[in-house]
Amino acid sequence: MVALTDPDLLFPPEAQSRSLARDLYAGVKNLPIVSPHGHTDPRWYALNEPFPDPAQLLIVPDHYIFRMLFSQGVRLEDLGVATLGGGPVETDGRTIWRRFAEYYYLFRGTPTRLWFDHVLAHLFGIDEPLTAATADRHYDTIATLLQWENFRPRALFERFNIEAIATTEGALDDLQWHQMIRDSGWQGRVVTAYRPDAVVDPDFEGFSTNLDQLGEITGCDTGSWGGYLDAHRQRRAFFKSFGATSSDHGHPTAETANLSDAAAQELFNRVRRGSDDERERKLFRAQMLTEMAKMSLDDGLVLQIHPGSQRNHSRAVFEKFGRDKGFDIPTRTDYVMALKPLLDCVGLERDLTVILFTLDETSYARELAPLAGVYPALKLGPAWWFHDSPEGMRRFREMTTETAGFYNTVGFNDDTRAFPSIPARHDVARRVDCAFLARLVAEHRLREDEAHELAGELAYTLAKKAYRL
Amino acid sequence: MVALTDPDLLFPPEAQSRSLARDLYAGVKNLPIVSPHGHTDPRWYALNEPFPDPAQLLIVPDHYIFRMLFSQGVRLEDLGVATLGGGPVETDGRTIWRRFAEYYYLFRGTPTRLWFDHVLAHLFGIDEPLTAATADRHYDTIATLLQWENFRPRALFERFNIEAIATTEGALDDLQWHQMIRDSGWQGRVVTAYRPDAVVDPDFEGFSTNLDQLGEITGCDTGSWGGYLDAHRQRRAFFKSFGATSSDHGHPTAETANLSDAAAQELFNRVRRGSDDERERKLFRAQMLTEMAKMSLDDGLVLQIHPGSQRNHSRAVFEKFGRDKGFDIPTRTDYVMALKPLLDCVGLERDLTVILFTLDETSYARELAPLAGVYPALKLGPAWWFHDSPEGMRRFREMTTETAGFYNTVGFNDDTRAFPSIPARHDVARRVDCAFLARLVAEHRLREDEAHELAGELAYTLAKKAYRL
Amino acid sequence: MVALTDPDLLFPPEAQSRSLARDLYAGVKNLPIVSPHGHTDPRWYALNEPFPDPAQLLIVPDHYIFRMLFSQGVRLEDLGVATLGGGPVETDGRTIWRRFAEYYYLFRGTPTRLWFDHVLAHLFGIDEPLTAATADRHYDTIATLLQWENFRPRALFERFNIEAIATTEGALDDLQWHQMIRDSGWQGRVVTAYRPDAVVDPDFEGFSTNLDQLGEITGCDTGSWGGYLDAHRQRRAFFKSFGATSSDHGHPTAETANLSDAAAQELFNRVRRGSDDERERKLFRAQMLTEMAKMSLDDGLVLQIHPGSQRNHSRAVFEKFGRDKGFDIPTRTDYVMALKPLLDCVGLERDLTVILFTLDETSYARELAPLAGVYPALKLGPAWWFHDSPEGMRRFREMTTETAGFYNTVGFNDDTRAFPSIPARHDVARRVDCAFLARLVAEHRLREDEAHELAGELAYTLAKKAYRL
Repeated sequence: MVALTDPDLLFPPEAQSRSLARDLYAGVKNLPIVSPHGHTDPRWYALNEPFPDPAQLLIVPDHYIFRMLFSQGVRLEDLGVATLGGGPVETDGRTIWRRFAEYYYLFRGTPTRLWFDHVLAHLFGIDEPLTAATADRHYDTIATLLQWENFRPRALFERFNIEAIATTEGALDDLQWHQMIRDSGWQGRVVTAYRPDAVVDPDFEGFSTNLDQLGEITGCDTGSWGGYLDAHRQRRAFFKSFGATSSDHGHPTAETANLSDAAAQELFNRVRRGSDDERERKLFRAQMLTEMAKMSLDDGLVLQIHPGSQRNHSRAVFEKFGRDKGFDIPTRTDYVMALKPLLDCVGLERDLTVILFTLDETSYARELAPLAGVYPALKLGPAWWFHDSPEGMRRFREMTTETAGFYNTVGFNDDTRAFPSIPARHDVARRVDCAFLARLVAEHRLREDEAHELAGELAYTLAKKAYRL
Repeated sequence: MVALTDPDLLFPPEAQSRSLARDLYAGVKNLPIVSPHGHTDPRWYALNEPFPDPAQLLIVPDHYIFRMLFSQGVRLEDLGVATLGGGPVETDGRTIWRRFAEYYYLFRGTPTRLWFDHVLAHLFGIDEPLTAATADRHYDTIATLLQWENFRPRALFERFNIEAIATTEGALDDLQWHQMIRDSGWQGRVVTAYRPDAVVDPDFEGFSTNLDQLGEITGCDTGSWGGYLDAHRQRRAFFKSFGATSSDHGHPTAETANLSDAAAQELFNRVRRGSDDERERKLFRAQMLTEMAKMSLDDGLVLQIHPGSQRNHSRAVFEKFGRDKGFDIPTRTDYVMALKPLLDCVGLERDLTVILFTLDETSYARELAPLAGVYPALKLGPAWWFHDSPEGMRRFREMTTETAGFYNTVGFNDDTRAFPSIPARHDVARRVDCAFLARLVAEHRLREDEAHELAGELAYTLAKKAYRL
Repeated sequence: MVALTDPDLLFPPEAQSRSLARDLYAGVKNLPIVSPHGHTDPRWYALNEPFPDPAQLLIVPDHYIFRMLFSQGVRLEDLGVATLGGGPVETDGRTIWRRFAEYYYLFRGTPTRLWFDHVLAHLFGIDEPLTAATADRHYDTIATLLQWENFRPRALFERFNIEAIATTEGALDDLQWHQMIRDSGWQGRVVTAYRPDAVVDPDFEGFSTNLDQLGEITGCDTGSWGGYLDAHRQRRAFFKSFGATSSDHGHPTAETANLSDAAAQELFNRVRRGSDDERERKLFRAQMLTEMAKMSLDDGLVLQIHPGSQRNHSRAVFEKFGRDKGFDIPTRTDYVMALKPLLDCVGLERDLTVILFTLDETSYARELAPLAGVYPALKLGPAWWFHDSPEGMRRFREMTTETAGFYNTVGFNDDTRAFPSIPARHDVARRVDCAFLARLVAEHRLREDEAHELAGELAYTLAKKAYRL
């Protein structure tokens, strides 16, 4: 019988390279996990209740999983995905699980397969492949374990050896779960991150109301440009008081602007009243990236830019099921001229860290590595979303290292809400990086002692340092 | 002496991976050929006459070959390529063959070299490399064999183990050769495919006359939008009666539209009268892709979209030699917003199959795999045209599998008019896919039993299923 | 202890492939260097004075080096980079060298690391890695050797086995150093290349004055279109008399135009007077590429097009330090429609050679290989600038060979002003090409005898032939 996860997973088959990769990996596999950019729910750590049934934990909320099944004709309702209208959906965990097991072969060659098998094997001690035949047995195993005390969120957090994890909260969030975690006295380090899209993007649902609310929360006059900026400053300070070391910005493009204060003020006034000029709304988003960068100079928050996703591509799915249902599609994204206003403003600052992500791999070697390889303020985030995969991570290293080096990158982050898969994701990243380093050593482009040092930096140190954790 | 084609062709050199690739390949090398998208001439199968001399069969019609020789200074006339004006061109097969042999080294590292050597070795039993020195001998060997009964089209069809092949005919074609094949009682399965570019694209030569002719053939009033659509429905039914399971659309871009019926009708009227507004002609093409998709919902034809070629790039060559002379150059192609109107209309339909091809590899991981990985109606066609090559096919798998999986792709098709090379092309594709699968197994990303299953699906089952053959 | 450069550097680890690569490399490692496109200073060969201290030779002028250090917070002034205003910068070579050594780990995984170690090992006989601890010792070794007679420019030129090298001079240059080289009787072949950006690009600083000066030098009336073209013809002839075989054009885009003579004349008149219409200035650049191509038809100079760099991206760095300070960032570059006017004019000429370079790798397989694979006048320059690296060169071969073949490429050029690194750069290129060929042989896509032939052509013959040297 073949184990679900082989000790040599993702290592190059050639003997000498494999041996090098094994040695490198042995040095990093047990390093603590630093997860500076993620989307787990702080409520879990706050309440520390048992996770729900296997399907609700592992399938229903995972858009990688339901998008693939949907592409092959399975209805979202049959996977338990709730509709906005509250129509009937499958609620029986076992039925959903069986459905998934029946289609599990679809994930061959995908990272989901690697993560899922890793979770089955390492978290739940399962050693038989998931198929229609084994579905019930695996379901029972997992359902049972999830009731155990040592499978509750905090216990897993500790078992996963997580040194620090960041969640992401909107600017209007009261951070009550973070408060509860703090009050509980539990020592796990769960920090928040400042995600102000809803009060920065005029196209966000309820933008105007959101700004009113921002004003109420902060006591600032969010009807004026100055008061609005002050409100951001206050919220950033509040988030910092709950450990935040970064802000995060999911704009559709990488465009930035650097208007005069008067022009920015006028733009704000128009946008605040609900501008119907798309260019104005776009310009406002662009300007706000630069404003956030300037605030970062003052308060030290790391600025993360995640552009390039065309959200909610299917109108029908969006209307029926809402956001985040697997229909966010990457688009071509340009950085060079888009980032110039921000970079002309703050790009040479050595105390600022701006981390760039992309869904457009063509920008790695052409734009991002050349930019990060010269601007002191810029660093490259790891291969992101659809590219958080063995081939995707390999391409990231192959296309960025020669121009930006390793030290203008920031290690790995898992970017996930799928808590049980966090160790799997970090494990895959560590293996891919060790395989890449092993190749450099085998080709005599790097000495072995350097590769060992780098392996540790890519797995642990760079993320910790870049995110100031 | 080195054989022209090694049994380990295209397999990874590392011993364990090579052994895996061999095993996988052994299981699929003799599977029947399903060729759902091709351009062979149905006349061959209808008349079953001997093929002409070696040069006329293997060189003169092959744009991969003459474009390369042309790039190095050989005149098209000297390769027997006819001019539109009927000026003198080389007609002596042996002279053309010698010229080709002299320049055969130019193809080193290209797929043409692999296909050609495969044809020499496997079809004609030749075991010495083609050079100026061996040119005559090889020419004689081939010329002799082409006169044999068992080298006639139907005999080769059977020897090639072709289970089904699709040709491509224009909407106005009377399918007489297909009729003749049917009447002959021969059992080879040769089906047609519906390619209506000439009556869908207002920029096509003679568009207006073509529509008149479409009206005459069908008895529909192609002066009205309704009549025009009915004419398409009729022709599609006629093509289906000759086995067609797909339509094929070679638009310059992937743009689609979904106009109201009234707007579509008005647009048709303007275009029908010969609109001089480029945007209108473009919008009409865009609308017609959606119309074809809607008809596919009714009649079950698979819709193929092949965008992104800038045809006839050299004005001088086009004027002297006409279309398809090696001057079709790929351009950047965007899919995400371009396909949205069509996808909002029919993308969630589970009974519809739309197969996307691209000449722009940057869209594989960024756009096509994410789209095909979620929309039930979408599948990805194999690496196409210039990318129908070992590196091209490898990149296709590396850049699509992690997001779309294997099961949102449709296996291989040869897309060729070069009949003798069909087994070579399928052989190369099978080898490349087995090598890719072997790597996944060697890296423990896939179990060996799964790889065997997948090898058969990629070589045979997926194409048959996707194209409903 | 590990030697700084391993004999198997960059060869594939798998035994059989490595052995093939070694054999191929053995056949080419000692071939003379042909360097048809470079930026070394002809003054060096003319005066043949000792090179300055190690830092001034190897660090201060190398933008690959100082951009990386700058990206990690080192100030350019502290690396000895002069400011335009003449403010104080570090002048002590040893201090600069120590600073560099301290940060040398940043270059792990970059080509700079390979080149630098190669120079240390092969030019200066150093066998210990450069670190803070060894910095002084290495500095002393190099400083001492640089005073030796056999480390002067001409001696190195000969030791490097350079058969021919091209420098690059502006159209207004008097070529005095080339004259001095000629007068000296030294036999080293140093030729110039014609780089007329300053008198072709209306956006170049002092364009109008430059044209006045061009008129004075040539005695042509550069106030008229005809006289202006004549002046170019004269300067080209002058450059040819100093061995030039090529011109070189660093336009921001690949756009070309082919205006009527009357339209070109009118455009010239507007631009000559200082047009404030950006489109006109752009159109003039586009037209001039075609004019240069037409002149090449007459005088045989090879035309090189290097588009796609967004120069001087940081306004602040440009204002303080000037051009070429590591802030030139590649941008997306389109070729298909951009080159059409030029190609419709001269693309089918078999006696013309136009060499295309790109910083946008997405154009390799999609646009450049298909164009060079059919137009007789087109050839592809090697992987350029940021892509002149092991992964970059490998991608170049993987993405161009299948469509353009090897014979529509022009071998390697080093494109460098870093004279001591020239052998290292050619060595890396030869190794990468041998590794690529070894893979093709190991996968049975190429015979071994062909690979040996190709290795020599890629390392030496193709460059010599394409550049007519």
